[in-house]
Amino acid sequence: MHRKPTYPASENKLIRQLQARYPVESRFLQKGIGDDAAIIRPDGAKEYWVLTTDMLVEEIDFRREWTTPRQLGRKSISVNLSDLAAMGARPRFFTVSLAIPPDVSEGWILGFHDGMTEKGDTLGAHLIGGDLSRSVKHIVISISAVGETLNRKVLYRSGGRPGDLLYVTGILGRSAAGLMLLQAGDTRSRSRSKKEALQAHHQPEPRCETGLWLAQSGLVSCMMDLSDGLSMDLPRLCDASGTGAEIRMSALPVFAESASWGCDPVDRALHGGEDYELLFAVPQSKSRLLEKAYPSNLPRISRIGTLSRDVGNTWITQEDQGRQPLLPRGFDHFAGRSRGGKTRRARRT
Amino acid sequence: MHRKPTYPASENKLIRQLQARYPVESRFLQKGIGDDAAIIRPDGAKEYWVLTTDMLVEEIDFRREWTTPRQLGRKSISVNLSDLAAMGARPRFFTVSLAIPPDVSEGWILGFHDGMTEKGDTLGAHLIGGDLSRSVKHIVISISAVGETLNRKVLYRSGGRPGDLLYVTGILGRSAAGLMLLQAGDTRSRSRSKKEALQAHHQPEPRCETGLWLAQSGLVSCMMDLSDGLSMDLPRLCDASGTGAEIRMSALPVFAESASWGCDPVDRALHGGEDYELLFAVPQSKSRLLEKAYPSNLPRISRIGTLSRDVGNTWITQEDQGRQPLLPRGFDHFAGRSRGGKTRRARRT
Repeated sequence: MHRKPTYPASENKLIRQLQARYPVESRFLQKGIGDDAAIIRPDGAKEYWVLTTDMLVEEIDFRREWTTPRQLGRKSISVNLSDLAAMGARPRFFTVSLAIPPDVSEGWILGFHDGMTEKGDTLGAHLIGGDLSRSVKHIVISISAVGETLNRKVLYRSGGRPGDLLYVTGILGRSAAGLMLLQAGDTRSRSRSKKEALQAHHQPEPRCETGLWLAQSGLVSCMMDLSDGLSMDLPRLCDASGTGAEIRMSALPVFAESASWGCDPVDRALHGGEDYELLFAVPQSKSRLLEKAYPSNLPRISRIGTLSRDVGNTWITQEDQGRQPLLPRGFDHFAGRSRGGKTRRARRT
Repeated sequence: MHRKPTYPASENKLIRQLQARYPVESRFLQKGIGDDAAIIRPDGAKEYWVLTTDMLVEEIDFRREWTTPRQLGRKSISVNLSDLAAMGARPRFFTVSLAIPPDVSEGWILGFHDGMTEKGDTLGAHLIGGDLSRSVKHIVISISAVGETLNRKVLYRSGGRPGDLLYVTGILGRSAAGLMLLQAGDTRSRSRSKKEALQAHHQPEPRCETGLWLAQSGLVSCMMDLSDGLSMDLPRLCDASGTGAEIRMSALPVFAESASWGCDPVDRALHGGEDYELLFAVPQSKSRLLEKAYPSNLPRISRIGTLSRDVGNTWITQEDQGRQPLLPRGFDHFAGRSRGGKTRRARRT
């Protein structure tokens, strides 16, 4: 029996271990463990079907007192559908398993479901099943979402090549700036930028339409969504693609307004989680075409750097300070101990 | 905000509410909320694809000190695949979300995954993804399993008609008898029957092959699996089929040996949960054919009663005492208050 009071290895290492330990051979499987979602090929089906699952745990991923049940429902499904967006798949269905402690009312459960189905329906995903459990103390939410490709076009984390240009959608660090406000108890402000940050934290918008467009364009080599922060997620993209990366600090689409409440916008853009923006790479020869063809009604994209041959290393360049290693300080569920001289966050809330 | 310290409505009522509240129209959906699993029709696919999800919560559904991680992994996937068996579908894939408190070691996590993939592989279901989260105190396991029909033949809870004969596979109340041993701390016994009961509790065998055979036979009108006990689950079958039911106590395949350790075998067969046997109905005209054709290598089946016109009521007949209402005393996750004069269990462990 294993009950040493230690933290397990970090999430990345554990997932790599599981991937190596349980290889799957199946004629129905296009892609298993190790990407944002798994891809199934039903016999005879026109399209691939894409499956992803995510868990949100109270006091780790959210606090009941910071959110309404409806907001939490909307966020829970958004987080899942972001994984489908990252593959370029269209959301179709989802199931939800919910563990509920005794002090949660029926009204809360219904409000949560209302938010979840409302947001899911808007994005094309419908609730088709679930499981309700009691729990001793904390709410736990587990959603599994199913999507469908279009023309069997999907994007993996693994398609990137050295030289490809790196892009992100939207703004980075806005959700983390909102979290900072919540942590400071500053939630009633009327300032536009604070409202925007809180909105980004409570109601992230999965980039489904953008992901689909990028997959259909045929111009993108690899893609993932940013859930744990660029400094955590970029190495995952590089790892899957067998590359390194270099990004330029001045090119990051930061949420500059947050500086007014003591937030470091660059730090939050690099290490803050829960932006649910897309990170993708484009071969240099196709980048002009992509930038020209990219629809103006979709969230803006920013070219932030390049993939490199320097496998296993990610660098950040700052004009006046030269190049420095970009060390992962984003959200790692299993980082409870200090590493690399820094104590890493073990809780998101 | 809803934070009254009340228990939510019981699970059945809540699920009915959700079902009515979120109707789904989709050309890809064959069956949504309200059965053991949902059924998807991918465009062009030869078969239907079946999706189910289940959550196991520490201290509600299991106790860490009663089980090895490998046993728990095996049981977790078995419980899910039982839902696919109940539809007559073949297991193909699964994902797992795991919330892990800090005192759980990496060895525990790997042991759990070993058990889960071992058992899944045996039954044809392969691990293709998941999510690892921290939790504050308790382990929470959420598995979503995907299956494929054969010749698009599926069985629903809703196909039963008055007059159909009711059957169950295997033995009922054996897992609950094992739970009783665990609760009494009686786990080291060398008695064959005690070992059998503990085995049934720790390592239930989902009836995948039997479910598939029954669906293919074309002789069965409705089916579900028994997870919360016959007295809880039979009314669910009746509710979906728009019938009542009558069962004969003398016909129940009880685990008689458990009487030797103070267990009431009939009580456990009626109200004990986690048997994961199949409950199904067969039109009277087809029952002889079914009994004759039923393969001898599959677990035995017992004819325990009939579906009736007496909608909403289930009765049990005892030879010397006549007919009595069969009141639900199985496992209801949301039954925390007394009802019908009886305090119902709120925890399984």
